[in-house]
Amino acid sequence: MTRLSLLCGLGFCLANQAMAWEQVLIDPNTPARNWQVTSEELGIQAERPFKVSMRTLHGGRQEGVSLIEIDNGVMRMTIVPNRGMNVLEAVAGDVRLGWDSPVDEVVNPSFIELNGREGLGWLEGFNELVTRCGYEWVGHPGEDNGELLTLHGRAANIPASRVVLQIDEKPPYVIRLRGELKEKAFKKVDFSIMTELSTEPGRRGFSLHDTLTNEGDYAKEYQALYHTNFGTPLLEQGARFVAPVKQVSPFNAKAGKELSDWQTYRGPTADYDETVFNVVPFADEQGETLTMLHNRSAELGVTVGFNTRELPVFSLWKNTDTEKQGYVTGLEPGTSYSYNRAYQRPLGLVPAIEPGEQKHFHVSYDLLVNKAAVADARSRIEAIQGDRKTEVIEKPLVDLEN
Amino acid sequence: MTRLSLLCGLGFCLANQAMAWEQVLIDPNTPARNWQVTSEELGIQAERPFKVSMRTLHGGRQEGVSLIEIDNGVMRMTIVPNRGMNVLEAVAGDVRLGWDSPVDEVVNPSFIELNGREGLGWLEGFNELVTRCGYEWVGHPGEDNGELLTLHGRAANIPASRVVLQIDEKPPYVIRLRGELKEKAFKKVDFSIMTELSTEPGRRGFSLHDTLTNEGDYAKEYQALYHTNFGTPLLEQGARFVAPVKQVSPFNAKAGKELSDWQTYRGPTADYDETVFNVVPFADEQGETLTMLHNRSAELGVTVGFNTRELPVFSLWKNTDTEKQGYVTGLEPGTSYSYNRAYQRPLGLVPAIEPGEQKHFHVSYDLLVNKAAVADARSRIEAIQGDRKTEVIEKPLVDLEN
Amino acid sequence: MTRLSLLCGLGFCLANQAMAWEQVLIDPNTPARNWQVTSEELGIQAERPFKVSMRTLHGGRQEGVSLIEIDNGVMRMTIVPNRGMNVLEAVAGDVRLGWDSPVDEVVNPSFIELNGREGLGWLEGFNELVTRCGYEWVGHPGEDNGELLTLHGRAANIPASRVVLQIDEKPPYVIRLRGELKEKAFKKVDFSIMTELSTEPGRRGFSLHDTLTNEGDYAKEYQALYHTNFGTPLLEQGARFVAPVKQVSPFNAKAGKELSDWQTYRGPTADYDETVFNVVPFADEQGETLTMLHNRSAELGVTVGFNTRELPVFSLWKNTDTEKQGYVTGLEPGTSYSYNRAYQRPLGLVPAIEPGEQKHFHVSYDLLVNKAAVADARSRIEAIQGDRKTEVIEKPLVDLEN
Repeated sequence: MTRLSLLCGLGFCLANQAMAWEQVLIDPNTPARNWQVTSEELGIQAERPFKVSMRTLHGGRQEGVSLIEIDNGVMRMTIVPNRGMNVLEAVAGDVRLGWDSPVDEVVNPSFIELNGREGLGWLEGFNELVTRCGYEWVGHPGEDNGELLTLHGRAANIPASRVVLQIDEKPPYVIRLRGELKEKAFKKVDFSIMTELSTEPGRRGFSLHDTLTNEGDYAKEYQALYHTNFGTPLLEQGARFVAPVKQVSPFNAKAGKELSDWQTYRGPTADYDETVFNVVPFADEQGETLTMLHNRSAELGVTVGFNTRELPVFSLWKNTDTEKQGYVTGLEPGTSYSYNRAYQRPLGLVPAIEPGEQKHFHVSYDLLVNKAAVADARSRIEAIQGDRKTEVIEKPLVDLEN
Repeated sequence: MTRLSLLCGLGFCLANQAMAWEQVLIDPNTPARNWQVTSEELGIQAERPFKVSMRTLHGGRQEGVSLIEIDNGVMRMTIVPNRGMNVLEAVAGDVRLGWDSPVDEVVNPSFIELNGREGLGWLEGFNELVTRCGYEWVGHPGEDNGELLTLHGRAANIPASRVVLQIDEKPPYVIRLRGELKEKAFKKVDFSIMTELSTEPGRRGFSLHDTLTNEGDYAKEYQALYHTNFGTPLLEQGARFVAPVKQVSPFNAKAGKELSDWQTYRGPTADYDETVFNVVPFADEQGETLTMLHNRSAELGVTVGFNTRELPVFSLWKNTDTEKQGYVTGLEPGTSYSYNRAYQRPLGLVPAIEPGEQKHFHVSYDLLVNKAAVADARSRIEAIQGDRKTEVIEKPLVDLEN
Repeated sequence: MTRLSLLCGLGFCLANQAMAWEQVLIDPNTPARNWQVTSEELGIQAERPFKVSMRTLHGGRQEGVSLIEIDNGVMRMTIVPNRGMNVLEAVAGDVRLGWDSPVDEVVNPSFIELNGREGLGWLEGFNELVTRCGYEWVGHPGEDNGELLTLHGRAANIPASRVVLQIDEKPPYVIRLRGELKEKAFKKVDFSIMTELSTEPGRRGFSLHDTLTNEGDYAKEYQALYHTNFGTPLLEQGARFVAPVKQVSPFNAKAGKELSDWQTYRGPTADYDETVFNVVPFADEQGETLTMLHNRSAELGVTVGFNTRELPVFSLWKNTDTEKQGYVTGLEPGTSYSYNRAYQRPLGLVPAIEPGEQKHFHVSYDLLVNKAAVADARSRIEAIQGDRKTEVIEKPLVDLEN
């Protein structure tokens, strides 16, 4: 670790942020390697000693994949630089945020053919708590502008180009992990996504702040969706989704049949497959909104907070099939729903980014470990809703049958 | 090497097998590396000293591919963990089981697009003695259930996740190499295949015992085919295929024209391409059967033994084109023929595996190094046939023309 | 470095070439690694000390890609063994031959799906000064013989199998870098391409000499195109292309509209995209020809020399779009134009290579650093043209509209 304060001597750093320790974990001259640092080694007398470490996996389709673990004293987050800086899981005590996908390796994108299985190759690697979808497109595979768009875009299968760890020298000792995704193709797209995950020692949660930059000379369409996936113990029969809802509609005819019950969950259900609901959330005056998943007894929950000016819509993915099939629900703030891009353009859900422009996406995740915390989150959500009505649209926004 | 006997202290091992030395060659924390062990180092006073070694290849499309060589004193088998634990070749003295493919590198699956060449991308890596085909499907590329099935499935291009070597501590010092293939995709397939290759010091052959487990909660179709390929010196003009045959039929119209001669081989023949014959073998009361390829003089041969309860059908692939094009014959026991899966379902050759069920596949290969050995194998095959008749079907089982 | 003279003791080397130092940089037993050698270490008292070095990149989609730099004292060439021995750039003083693609990583082919984007996946890695196109096919994606041919073939995405550096022991101390590309697929293609880049200390240029061998037993179609790409400072408004031209025609209708001005360049032009012109060059009696790009003031230029018996046609690719979109021109000698192979067969531009036959491709690149050098090159080009007329064909050779 070198003290960033040395760089700060140039006058740049002090103006913008507290002084921080900084370590390059991966860059063109720095291969991923086994490495770790502890608060103790940094000379920090933390109430909650913390630790950051990196190691590389071998064998199978995870050969060469590295994992970065940030243990902030109460929660241990695992980030996968090789897979779009996705968050594999976050564990606090005996609660794990994440889920059990049949895909039980952390798959190196070098083994993935996104174009396989008619554009569903992405499914051969999908198993994270937070899977970035985007940024050229999101949604189901299908043709748009004469090109097969593969499921949910390329981001999750882009290895990060430069990964840097930063730890503030002063309380609350914010820990930041940044990794850049280069989503590029000559004549097609020139995006850079600077991802950032931050947390503080003692926090049972973490925040993402991603910055999409259009480095090209032309305005481009883009889409983003934060596919955040929870299984047990949060998800169970009677678990509930809570949000300030301006509008809800079923993704397709099947979801339409369960519209009356869309905010409660089934237990693992054979042959259920999935239902998806499209949500337009309400937000406060700054655009901030909060959604929550809590278990049946409302003693355990998680909040997903975001800003509707950045991510105006939300998909609730209820994949309450059997446990081994992947019993999981997705809370997915996005610029867009999960339809193919061709369907979303008429809905106004394919925004553009101007040359040189930056789009920011903030999403925060916090675990709620008791009834009071769940109740408090519910109050905050109700405050956002206020006395505003929810519009329930019975028919899917998109006619997928024709 | 650690003595597995320590684990056996738990009572598991002694009940099931002799005590054994065990070495993890590859697992999440163990990268492939240059390594070897000899019978001498293990303190074994073997009549036939044996050796197992591992090394990694570099450059070209074989960058990062490892080879594991088991030299049992009379035969040296080369296994490719990165390619479905396929057996690249087996060499005994001056006889090599295997063939010369134009593909002369051992290709890392990270460079293969199975979906390329209209589903024939598999051909860019095909060069082994035993190439595993399956297990979600086998057969020629084509659409089934709205999805392009690529040639012969994914197994040969799945790197093994955990590779373990075991050597019995007591005679006959059985050497076992296991590697697990994870054939997984969310919502699509949840297969694990525990492959095992075993041999004994002094044996001019080896046995495979693969266990396919459906780790999912739903019954799934599966297919398996052991694409075992022999070139010279076994294959030559006048070489013969011998088997107890219940039924034979030509794969297509071209093969139909050569049906009368289907058990003998041509020498290298320009513009021949290939003919394929579909065989239903007879077996003994336990389902065991034996097939053989021998050279013209019947002084050199190889047997391929399997169980028809596991692998009920067999394809004879006669690719007697020129030497550089790949002069090779495939003896291919399988659950299925080499048609696209869509064609095999009506033939009853697309079996299902229930949730949690295991399917076993045993295939054994033994080199026959003199006339007596070939004659003995022929006797065993004739004993299985007994006086049972062979049904010759003149027309292909599948109408490929329409 | 070992002295090749030792090998030459076998009588082979002395007969064929000067004695040389030789170093294997990559082969099955030699992974790419950080390495360098200098003229001083070789005991060479060079007027222009030279250096060759190799290093490996990490992070992002360039993980594991190696770069070989040959600094001959006045020009530093960077070669990418993982990408078809392509030449990334060549820098002499403050002039860089090369261009700025939006793709700013040197992408490992293991992350490329050539079949993605309807066959345009190649664009996700395209950023070199010299990108080899071929050798099974070149040209725009599209179906031919029932198979999707992906943009410009596989060569640029084949890692070199064996890379050897050779430095002559005697003046002019020619430096040669060879790398073999294996372009193979069972039943489909059996090509080997021995690439060679050579330069001499003090030369502001380099030469390629590639040898395509058909290692198969059947004649095969092949195509080759040397996609050589220049941006600023050579390319600018008013820059000119100079060549001895037998025939020129527009690639498509759009190019047809700019036919009158086809040899001059625009500055960076929004929404320009590209125009392409098909050229049949004149050559001297040995087939040698020369083309040149020079800047507006004719004080800086580069020549691309080749032999029309090997590479009979030439594409001029004018991609004078904005700088960030990729302001670049391609001078592309080839066996063929950039149409899909299906279109080129009727034009007689899909040659065949017989079994065992070798096809040689020589292309040389030299930087011109002053007015006199540019004028001299122009004179040589004019001498080739002599008083022979240029045929201008107004209509594209291929009707792409239908």
